[in-house]
Amino acid sequence: MKNKSPLAPKKNKNLQLFDGISVSSTHCGLKKNKRLDLVLIKLDEPGSILGSFTKSKTPGEPIIWNKSIIKKKKVSAILINSGNANVFTGPAGKKAIFDIINTLSSNLGVPENEIFLASTGVIGEPLDSEKIIRKIPFLIKSQKNERLEWTKAADAIRTTDTYAKYHSEIVSKKDSLFINGIAKGSGMIQPNMATMLSFIFTNTDILNKKVELGFKEIIDKTFNSISVDGDTSTSDMVLLFSVNNKKLVTKPKEIQKKFLEKLELLMTTLSHLIVKDGEGASKFITVEVLEAKNDEDARTVARSIINSPLIKTAMAGSDSNWGRIIMAIGKTDAQILPEKISLSFGKYLIIDKGSKFISKNVLKINKYLKKSEIKINISLGLGRGNTKMWTCDLTKDYISINADYRS
Amino acid sequence: MKNKSPLAPKKNKNLQLFDGISVSSTHCGLKKNKRLDLVLIKLDEPGSILGSFTKSKTPGEPIIWNKSIIKKKKVSAILINSGNANVFTGPAGKKAIFDIINTLSSNLGVPENEIFLASTGVIGEPLDSEKIIRKIPFLIKSQKNERLEWTKAADAIRTTDTYAKYHSEIVSKKDSLFINGIAKGSGMIQPNMATMLSFIFTNTDILNKKVELGFKEIIDKTFNSISVDGDTSTSDMVLLFSVNNKKLVTKPKEIQKKFLEKLELLMTTLSHLIVKDGEGASKFITVEVLEAKNDEDARTVARSIINSPLIKTAMAGSDSNWGRIIMAIGKTDAQILPEKISLSFGKYLIIDKGSKFISKNVLKINKYLKKSEIKINISLGLGRGNTKMWTCDLTKDYISINADYRS
Repeated sequence: MKNKSPLAPKKNKNLQLFDGISVSSTHCGLKKNKRLDLVLIKLDEPGSILGSFTKSKTPGEPIIWNKSIIKKKKVSAILINSGNANVFTGPAGKKAIFDIINTLSSNLGVPENEIFLASTGVIGEPLDSEKIIRKIPFLIKSQKNERLEWTKAADAIRTTDTYAKYHSEIVSKKDSLFINGIAKGSGMIQPNMATMLSFIFTNTDILNKKVELGFKEIIDKTFNSISVDGDTSTSDMVLLFSVNNKKLVTKPKEIQKKFLEKLELLMTTLSHLIVKDGEGASKFITVEVLEAKNDEDARTVARSIINSPLIKTAMAGSDSNWGRIIMAIGKTDAQILPEKISLSFGKYLIIDKGSKFISKNVLKINKYLKKSEIKINISLGLGRGNTKMWTCDLTKDYISINADYRS
Repeated sequence: MKNKSPLAPKKNKNLQLFDGISVSSTHCGLKKNKRLDLVLIKLDEPGSILGSFTKSKTPGEPIIWNKSIIKKKKVSAILINSGNANVFTGPAGKKAIFDIINTLSSNLGVPENEIFLASTGVIGEPLDSEKIIRKIPFLIKSQKNERLEWTKAADAIRTTDTYAKYHSEIVSKKDSLFINGIAKGSGMIQPNMATMLSFIFTNTDILNKKVELGFKEIIDKTFNSISVDGDTSTSDMVLLFSVNNKKLVTKPKEIQKKFLEKLELLMTTLSHLIVKDGEGASKFITVEVLEAKNDEDARTVARSIINSPLIKTAMAGSDSNWGRIIMAIGKTDAQILPEKISLSFGKYLIIDKGSKFISKNVLKINKYLKKSEIKINISLGLGRGNTKMWTCDLTKDYISINADYRS
């Protein structure tokens, strides 16, 4: 068992309870040591769903299944397992999906194409669907809508995560509208539908263009803007569930605006919780790129920095080796003029338009770099493109965790 | 001081001596502990030169200088220093180049635009050119064409390298034609003019289309096909020097063919020596991708594998976690059909056209993965594209070396 990440939040925001949805978790045997590894979330009535999935060309079977049914935007339940990703498992993997969906559909009395699946864990091991199917009646019987049961679900979807990740926001007190989210992710994380699972639940209406577009934009600004190790998983997904709409006091437009604001807060928090649990992480690093020629260039440069092992190890060593940042900027295909680059660590200016500006502050900078949250700010001096991305440092513990994961 | 890499060759091939070129090395103070850090290589008469440089947009001053003079393809000398890269050093960095070139030109009595420079070491520290200039008369006085002096040069250009890298090939015994090469590189290595310096010397004629094209192709197959950490340096270069031509017995066409064959052998050996000295490396990994849709797809897939921290840590742990290889294949933009992928570790077939094929050999495979040289063979079953690339595993020592490099 790994120790809890030193960056783990001291306290999680309590989840809000709202009607129309329930959850249960159990141990079905895919993880060792009787740890929770199976979650069923059920909507009382069919609700709405939006989703985003990994771009991997060797996606997991649950990804293939979910993509085939999400166009209807209708959901009645989701079953999530950890301990096995059901990826690259051939015809047996497809049969496992078929059997599980079949059992769920008849036991829950809902159509197959309203049931979503998610799996995370080792790739390429056959998924023993019997272990899952055997537990379905128990999961249905044990459905609850209680805080403890929701946090148990956040716990059950973990793999190498050292803590359960969840967060909650209030959209409108007056109308009792809420958003809850749970997430998992720790390794195989890089910005492009980062390697993680996140399930977000709300009782706010999501079936309108504004929210659908906004959801995609927020994914880019949050889950697609983080990196632990530059590797992209085969099983990533973010799903946004909504239980049936209620009559509202507030105007829909106002609610939509508020909802997107709060959704961004929630997804930002969840994505940061993933970085802070980055395998072996001891530091949380924010990289902001300003004045790039355009947003795409800004993202290219930020991504190069958050994925550079040399920068991430320098951060682990609290080493102000900013030359490595210059290297990472230089190796991209973004437009760059060295004499226009400015760089700071937090409030300490290191480079001002291509000129070094560091000498007096060495001691203060070294002290700053020993902190557990570090900001790297870059200005390229070329235009109005900007972005923010997040990563963690690269430590010896990353190696230990990943060299021994299966054994 | 780091320990010598466990992958270091037991014995280097002795360099061949040929007339027309000489070398000297010294300590000028850019590295600590009186270690050699400055090399001057001089041609008796102006010779020919071909080169390839980093694509970084924040290149070092020596790169900028060399690029400005290489079109003439004429060379009289090269000065190489380690300990400081002269990158991102602003106007002071340009002045350092000017002063060094100026002194060399007048002391050697050769035109400025026949003098090449190379620097490697920390980025962003001003280069104290006085330390270098002060030693120029001594370097000129001490020129020798002896084996020991050439290996001292290979030693002097090291930074975090744990051993000196050199190799030699005979092009034609009858005509006494030889190729010698020295190289450095250990971190900041990734395929795209990989982060390294290599200087190759021959007395074979290189100024013809066949050799010029061949040289570029061989760079792609060797130095551009290795990776230690996916980071690209600001100072990479490969330079091929030729001393004045001699009258030959053998036909030029035959010599050219032989030369390119031997040059490829030499550059393959040097590039592998770099990977085997990869920071913290304990394993040398060959990745071969066959039957991709085209060569570009093959290279994209191979690159994704050799740059994946998750695969490289799995290799460090001798872990047959081949799911990570599937992940790395899947995350590329190459054309992929999961059901056509085959994968083996050495002679052990793991996946045969999308189906797992591993169970009986687990013990043998685990034993194989404990070896210090490992082969990962992938067939995508789609076409005739293929490539070979090389990398090392990612160990805790990589982190130690890079978290503490400057201190």
